[in-house]
Amino acid sequence: MSDRDDELILLAHGGGGIMMRELIDSIISGLGSPGSGVLQDSALVDSPGSRLAFTTDSFVVSPLVFPGGDIGSLAVCGTVNDLAVCGARPLMLSLSFIIEEGFRISALEEIVCSIAKAAGEADVRIVTGDTKVVERGKADGLFINTSGIGVVPEGIDLSSAGARPGDMVLVNGPIGEHGLAIMSLREGIDFGSDLESDTAPLSRLIMPLLESVKGIRAMRDATRGGVAAVLNEIAGDSGVSIRIDEESIPVSAAVRNGCELMGYDPLHIANEGKFIAIVAEESAEKALSFMRSHTLGRGAAIIGRVSNEPPGHVIM
Amino acid sequence: MSDRDDELILLAHGGGGIMMRELIDSIISGLGSPGSGVLQDSALVDSPGSRLAFTTDSFVVSPLVFPGGDIGSLAVCGTVNDLAVCGARPLMLSLSFIIEEGFRISALEEIVCSIAKAAGEADVRIVTGDTKVVERGKADGLFINTSGIGVVPEGIDLSSAGARPGDMVLVNGPIGEHGLAIMSLREGIDFGSDLESDTAPLSRLIMPLLESVKGIRAMRDATRGGVAAVLNEIAGDSGVSIRIDEESIPVSAAVRNGCELMGYDPLHIANEGKFIAIVAEESAEKALSFMRSHTLGRGAAIIGRVSNEPPGHVIM
Repeated sequence: MSDRDDELILLAHGGGGIMMRELIDSIISGLGSPGSGVLQDSALVDSPGSRLAFTTDSFVVSPLVFPGGDIGSLAVCGTVNDLAVCGARPLMLSLSFIIEEGFRISALEEIVCSIAKAAGEADVRIVTGDTKVVERGKADGLFINTSGIGVVPEGIDLSSAGARPGDMVLVNGPIGEHGLAIMSLREGIDFGSDLESDTAPLSRLIMPLLESVKGIRAMRDATRGGVAAVLNEIAGDSGVSIRIDEESIPVSAAVRNGCELMGYDPLHIANEGKFIAIVAEESAEKALSFMRSHTLGRGAAIIGRVSNEPPGHVIM
Repeated sequence: MSDRDDELILLAHGGGGIMMRELIDSIISGLGSPGSGVLQDSALVDSPGSRLAFTTDSFVVSPLVFPGGDIGSLAVCGTVNDLAVCGARPLMLSLSFIIEEGFRISALEEIVCSIAKAAGEADVRIVTGDTKVVERGKADGLFINTSGIGVVPEGIDLSSAGARPGDMVLVNGPIGEHGLAIMSLREGIDFGSDLESDTAPLSRLIMPLLESVKGIRAMRDATRGGVAAVLNEIAGDSGVSIRIDEESIPVSAAVRNGCELMGYDPLHIANEGKFIAIVAEESAEKALSFMRSHTLGRGAAIIGRVSNEPPGHVIM
């Protein structure tokens, strides 16, 4: 370890990209559970009588309140979505607050209301919790961790290694809205009044979709690192390449304008209510029309196809 | 809510005492799950085929490394212990890091090693995780959240409402070591070289104890707020009073001296490897000798008795 004595954690280590993957691979290998998927987004565990999914996420968003949501709705939906894209019906959440001394109690109350509302919409129970308060200056107002347990119904088997050549790539709606809404607030730039976070509990769409449409092989919610990171991960894990038709990717005018102004690529921007589904070719149209019939999938589109070109690549 | 607009979170809100209980009661009631035990330390949930316990804890200890442990071993043991005192065998943990930009990677590696070691000792798997990095000055080096799932064996039913008049009160060893070790570091006062945190995975003692000794009614690990907070909670929840014989409480010389010097009461100091067990009178001696035969219970003692005096009180 001595050659790392001077290496420091950088902001980029938390970005969901290559630096974070490398950090996790190198550091967390110390946990030494070979092949266990340590520090994956979710774990699937066989328990007596059912297959459980277990996931955890800490939320450190700033500002805490933004158009379309706040850290509370985000913390509920983020963990619910991690479960849903594993094919797991969310059952229960834990909720842990780290609060900075001096935080306004009325602001905390509003966030708790938002948590309760989001949990109701996601039909998930918050069953256990914890509160820590740290000295002024030792946190950024409020951090929230939510962990979640879900049950995977019989016959559902989603995996980021499940994509096969010929499969179609679907997204449930326009991308980039959450990340751009946050950045617009942070930078103080107004991209138009219709730009707000897409934070939503995807289980409401995904669970009935999985019941109605067979041939869904893989799903990932496109949070940190955006759609690009998810496609790269699926391509790598499945040993395939993925061809994306950029024209077909749904992007709202507000996001497109904002991205042009700021020099961003919507594919790399975080979403909190969007997922990528890899679907067998023969089921793709059915999956698409099912998504479009649902509030959370109105803007769904087929954006590409899995191919057997040199594996591990995403080609535009 | 307008009358609270100016109310701010104070450090005391995180102390595990009355202020925190009141905060949780008033704020978290917004979560609106009547009688669900929202934000209790652990939740018990009936799942198909088994009774699960689910718990979460965020760790914000400073300094991160201390005699007898570090934030890593603490995060594993704390959550394992929350499960164990529910009578649940710890199965798996999630692990979520919030890291301050600029944190030394070699320090993170050492903490991860400590996590792996503690998980091995506790015989629990770390199955899922998350890493966030926040800007310099927005956290205190490193915060860790661990959430955990355990299985409650058939026939085990522990509850802080289970104490009955006549029951005996046991503790598994000398109290106050963790909290005083941390305070001694923070204040820069040396109370003697033998003062170190008691951080330990209590499941190693509790699970065989529950198998061997019947008549154990309630258990609580005596963390924030110390033994006093736990006794008050059990007395309140069970509607009984508890008589404690102060002379019988095991306290090491280092803790006793340190407490005298600083004006602290060992009963209010946090432990990370100590629990209170309420045991039916006829089983108390058997439980005591079982504890004393185990590494984690060598210093166990009977420290009091549940009585039917005016309920909700702890009497010295």
